[in-house]
Amino acid sequence: MTKIRLGMVGGGKDAFIGAVHRIAARIDGEYDLVAGALSSTPERARESGLALGLAPDRTYGSYEEMAAQEAARPDGIRAVSIVTPNHMHAGPAMAFLQHGIHVICDKPLTATMEDAARLETAVKASKALFILTHNYTAYPMIRQAREMVASGELGKIRLIQVEYAQDWLTEDAGADNKQAGWRTDPARSGAGGAIGDIGTHAHNLACFVSGLAVESLAADLQSFVPGRQVDDNANILLRMQGGARGILWCSQVAPGCENGLRLRIFGEKGGLEWGQEDPNYLWHSPFGGAKRLLTRRGAGASAAANAVSRTPGGHPEGYLEGFANIYTEAARAIRAADSGQTPDTGLLPGIAAGMAGMRFIDAAIRSSRGNAAWVAL
Amino acid sequence: MTKIRLGMVGGGKDAFIGAVHRIAARIDGEYDLVAGALSSTPERARESGLALGLAPDRTYGSYEEMAAQEAARPDGIRAVSIVTPNHMHAGPAMAFLQHGIHVICDKPLTATMEDAARLETAVKASKALFILTHNYTAYPMIRQAREMVASGELGKIRLIQVEYAQDWLTEDAGADNKQAGWRTDPARSGAGGAIGDIGTHAHNLACFVSGLAVESLAADLQSFVPGRQVDDNANILLRMQGGARGILWCSQVAPGCENGLRLRIFGEKGGLEWGQEDPNYLWHSPFGGAKRLLTRRGAGASAAANAVSRTPGGHPEGYLEGFANIYTEAARAIRAADSGQTPDTGLLPGIAAGMAGMRFIDAAIRSSRGNAAWVAL
Amino acid sequence: MTKIRLGMVGGGKDAFIGAVHRIAARIDGEYDLVAGALSSTPERARESGLALGLAPDRTYGSYEEMAAQEAARPDGIRAVSIVTPNHMHAGPAMAFLQHGIHVICDKPLTATMEDAARLETAVKASKALFILTHNYTAYPMIRQAREMVASGELGKIRLIQVEYAQDWLTEDAGADNKQAGWRTDPARSGAGGAIGDIGTHAHNLACFVSGLAVESLAADLQSFVPGRQVDDNANILLRMQGGARGILWCSQVAPGCENGLRLRIFGEKGGLEWGQEDPNYLWHSPFGGAKRLLTRRGAGASAAANAVSRTPGGHPEGYLEGFANIYTEAARAIRAADSGQTPDTGLLPGIAAGMAGMRFIDAAIRSSRGNAAWVAL
Amino acid sequence: MTKIRLGMVGGGKDAFIGAVHRIAARIDGEYDLVAGALSSTPERARESGLALGLAPDRTYGSYEEMAAQEAARPDGIRAVSIVTPNHMHAGPAMAFLQHGIHVICDKPLTATMEDAARLETAVKASKALFILTHNYTAYPMIRQAREMVASGELGKIRLIQVEYAQDWLTEDAGADNKQAGWRTDPARSGAGGAIGDIGTHAHNLACFVSGLAVESLAADLQSFVPGRQVDDNANILLRMQGGARGILWCSQVAPGCENGLRLRIFGEKGGLEWGQEDPNYLWHSPFGGAKRLLTRRGAGASAAANAVSRTPGGHPEGYLEGFANIYTEAARAIRAADSGQTPDTGLLPGIAAGMAGMRFIDAAIRSSRGNAAWVAL
Repeated sequence: MTKIRLGMVGGGKDAFIGAVHRIAARIDGEYDLVAGALSSTPERARESGLALGLAPDRTYGSYEEMAAQEAARPDGIRAVSIVTPNHMHAGPAMAFLQHGIHVICDKPLTATMEDAARLETAVKASKALFILTHNYTAYPMIRQAREMVASGELGKIRLIQVEYAQDWLTEDAGADNKQAGWRTDPARSGAGGAIGDIGTHAHNLACFVSGLAVESLAADLQSFVPGRQVDDNANILLRMQGGARGILWCSQVAPGCENGLRLRIFGEKGGLEWGQEDPNYLWHSPFGGAKRLLTRRGAGASAAANAVSRTPGGHPEGYLEGFANIYTEAARAIRAADSGQTPDTGLLPGIAAGMAGMRFIDAAIRSSRGNAAWVAL
Repeated sequence: MTKIRLGMVGGGKDAFIGAVHRIAARIDGEYDLVAGALSSTPERARESGLALGLAPDRTYGSYEEMAAQEAARPDGIRAVSIVTPNHMHAGPAMAFLQHGIHVICDKPLTATMEDAARLETAVKASKALFILTHNYTAYPMIRQAREMVASGELGKIRLIQVEYAQDWLTEDAGADNKQAGWRTDPARSGAGGAIGDIGTHAHNLACFVSGLAVESLAADLQSFVPGRQVDDNANILLRMQGGARGILWCSQVAPGCENGLRLRIFGEKGGLEWGQEDPNYLWHSPFGGAKRLLTRRGAGASAAANAVSRTPGGHPEGYLEGFANIYTEAARAIRAADSGQTPDTGLLPGIAAGMAGMRFIDAAIRSSRGNAAWVAL
Repeated sequence: MTKIRLGMVGGGKDAFIGAVHRIAARIDGEYDLVAGALSSTPERARESGLALGLAPDRTYGSYEEMAAQEAARPDGIRAVSIVTPNHMHAGPAMAFLQHGIHVICDKPLTATMEDAARLETAVKASKALFILTHNYTAYPMIRQAREMVASGELGKIRLIQVEYAQDWLTEDAGADNKQAGWRTDPARSGAGGAIGDIGTHAHNLACFVSGLAVESLAADLQSFVPGRQVDDNANILLRMQGGARGILWCSQVAPGCENGLRLRIFGEKGGLEWGQEDPNYLWHSPFGGAKRLLTRRGAGASAAANAVSRTPGGHPEGYLEGFANIYTEAARAIRAADSGQTPDTGLLPGIAAGMAGMRFIDAAIRSSRGNAAWVAL
Repeated sequence: MTKIRLGMVGGGKDAFIGAVHRIAARIDGEYDLVAGALSSTPERARESGLALGLAPDRTYGSYEEMAAQEAARPDGIRAVSIVTPNHMHAGPAMAFLQHGIHVICDKPLTATMEDAARLETAVKASKALFILTHNYTAYPMIRQAREMVASGELGKIRLIQVEYAQDWLTEDAGADNKQAGWRTDPARSGAGGAIGDIGTHAHNLACFVSGLAVESLAADLQSFVPGRQVDDNANILLRMQGGARGILWCSQVAPGCENGLRLRIFGEKGGLEWGQEDPNYLWHSPFGGAKRLLTRRGAGASAAANAVSRTPGGHPEGYLEGFANIYTEAARAIRAADSGQTPDTGLLPGIAAGMAGMRFIDAAIRSSRGNAAWVAL
């Protein structure tokens, strides 16, 4: 099976998420990275391309150029990964979609609602696929959790507790910290800080597993670090479809929390608990029975979990494998689309998830400005 | 040293918290239970007294009778434990206080704000001590947590995450369940269900450790189980003194949670985490350093923790020992008071904590009725 | 029900285990401590008795005097706790047994095999009960583990992994450390160091839960700390009845281990895991199924566990409650014996367990001297 | 940088470890798999090659043919992965080494001591590199553990507890289980069962981290499952260089253990604990201080750990990333060797580790046959 020719926008030297996307694309051997507009600085773009072994003529200085030229090549890329800061998602995504090139885009969807709306229109107008890397949805035990909820094993869902806590922005990260720089700059990140960067993951995960949308929320956002222009903590009450209630907490100023995305979900018949830092485990508490520790590929693992798992139980998979699952499922969908079939994008996050995330950010900010008033999504 | 003669109101056969109080009073050998009005049913009161080895003439049919007669005896009780349902706290407490008998009362303070106000007046008018068994404050590692916050080890506090989750009321417990019966009956429990029974513990603990009061809250309360007249889940946003923000979640319908009282507190310089089900551990995360696992009587344990600890590290103490710490510190205060000294009640929860708890319940209910509007405490 | 009048030999000021026994005796209110020979130093004995509230005429200077006088009093003690260093177990135990006073004795049985044999004879000759405080056998989840093995839930037992690791003797504890002093002095502790102090607990627990005796062992003992006269670490291979094999590791020089008694047991159909520092949990792994976390008084707790449990699930019990279970079961047996019934001492460790422990110590030392040759017990 | 052209021997359809090697080779993008002799069955070899996208003319029916032809091609492979059952390691390894092709070989080294000796000679005679995939040594926190020991942070090492427990062979796996089939067949696996398959990993890891070799051992091996021709459990006492003592336990019949490789190491000044199933954590217990939880890329992570780490703290890496570290370090060494430099193979396991493993297996079997007599390695 020939590999899918892949390009990348963003992800030059020192970038964090670009390197993650590249490893994710490599793990299952489905992609071949052959082109890139890796930086908005031409010199840096060239150097980064060289370091990655790209051909010089496929190391572009701008995404517009890249989209046009790759579309024109007989061996042009079939898919592009967009791993730029948020404000630079919509432009490249629309450019490649217009050329019929599939887009795999980092989250959140865009920096502004306006961009999001334009991108949504572009996605709908294109035959190419648009996939948003809400990577946490592709962890095997999250897939199992979703399946257990869907099958009714927990009964009607009543409660959701989701949190995503980090500590890396506890202090002002300083001008040198590239990751912190754009994430705390509203011009590049959008109006949301923590709420956009990690709150959207928490929101997405809660909805993905529960199968329920957030109907309205009441948010209390804070910027604890002096001078910070975006929120670094958000305490949010949720009202979900069907009467379920929830709490979403995200923070980047919680010392001791590295990447603490954690989901608990409780129904009339049982509860589930999962933490991203120990992703091979899923706790299941049937009401009235002993707690069960389900492990990836263990005796209690389900078909949905096993389908996105590579190694036997006890041989831990991690963040990169979860991310790779998105790429591998995307590859399957891309191959189907390119061979004229209707691709199955069932569990892949796409434009709908992206728009839901944008509405979540927007609602949270508006609610907080209204003193935590309820805002419908 | 002679033991303190103790009486008990409530706590007859099949009672849960009465038996806990009795064990707590015995652990350090400071008390001698000699009198009781153990049930509101005279026959049951007699049987229960007999089973506990009380003298027949000190097994009373009513607390009024008990207060009067014990006060009149030369060997009368010096303290009384009140372990009745919430609506039966104020009456007995006032009766014994009036007779100069020290009161150790279960929480929450009372079932209604009116009763609370009357009791507060009575406490202020009496020379006797009034102690409220917010027992979780007396766990050694909670004492250490409080001390670490007070000493500035975490820096200025920004965030508090406190939760108290149980699952025993996930389904209607049925008419036979005595514990569930009164706790879900507003006439006996008060208007708060989970919020009064366990939410007050969470609220108290967060304030005790952080040293910060809740200034206002926005609460979303639910009664998930059909027919239930009180809340069984509460999602609450907190605004604390000094700008700290928090979330309090309490629930009695969260399958898999047995007695999940858990506190996390984050400041500018570090974070702490503690869970009641594993109470001998306290996680300390200094910002920029490795996490530290502090253990009761371990190498990192503080004087405040060691002062309320009996066994060496690794020999776990639990719920009953924590509860006993309240009784033992109360004994010290009672001995001081009875010998004419000013008792040191520094860390003992009393009428102020009780009133704060009542205001918390009241505010939560009013906020929820106002669609989670902010209510000042 | 009147309390059982209890005496104590040893356990004066600063003693560790004496205080533990006293709390254990108080927790369920079954005993009344009324007499003591609390120290071999008369002045210290007097002071300690005073501090504990004993009547001056029942604070004895020697156990011989105490045994004689208490036996002669109409209100004399019915039971005595012996909490002296190992070399002082046999003498007092025999003295009280001779007078028909029940004995509750700390472990290991004695310091020497000779003393053990004499004591065994005395126990068999007396009508009084002899109970050895192998307290770890009385933790609720250990009782459940034993019951699960006995009922065949694990199938035939193949493997036992038991360890008891501490770190407090990692360095020479110094002359001031009373606990370390006698435990590392062969004249008082016996020839075994770690092997006697904690190895016997590990051995006892493995046998108690598995229902299997150790048939032979191969032991490699070390004294890592210069100048230490007894072992401070022991690595031991076990061959058990029925073909099961095992490893027993005990150490007092393992930094980071506080009181790490831990048992794992594996059969043809499943495995169990329990750790003393988190005693309210028992892991059960049915082969081919998901792991189950059984909790004290939780949904999966058995009758055997619930019978020795006081508080609901999630309200942790600990070391002292486990120890108290021995005292409370002993009280039941003592009451039966004293009322002419045949006492049920089914699960209570007694002289047989004590002798097995002595044979274990002796075999381990002999094996190690023989370069870890197999020695039958 | 051009990729290293890689071949593979073994690893056809349904193979477990072959797929692992391929992912490991892909993760950091250093290799290009271009040739294979993927099965000893020609038809299966062809199908497997096709499925992996190999060119038909580079899908070989035998390793001899592959070695000869690849060596003759200008674009021939520079390295080969050998992922066959143990008895098929030596032949291919020698064939490729003879042609100057670097070898990356699965463990244990060979099935017999004779093969091992022949292979050792071949390795010494070849200019090509020989790397043995003791993959667990390349986990970041294991690298940190090793560094901490080497730097003296634990003081002189006294104790090592290493274990590797699994449960998948608890019952006879049946004829259909390909993995179980060869691993329990002495003709293919060698005389060691569990001891060879996983015991060698445990042995290797203990030596790698401690920097100490095993001087002698006393082993008690069992075959619990009826009809099994190799050991499925091994209880082993260790005597290490410098007076350290240890225990090694490996088992494939321990229900509830998935892939439980776990190492604890204790010195005069501190202890370390690490478990493979949660590999991003390393516990450090400085004697006299609080326990520290060191996390991969966390605040306490060392340069040695960070050097083999890809994602930030809290974004867990797992088994495949650890395995990939071997491949990536091998790539660096291969590039150096092929460019005429002296390759740095410092931390890479090679022939010496392989020989040590073989001696360990041999000694364990001989010791067990001698009733657990001490055998020097």
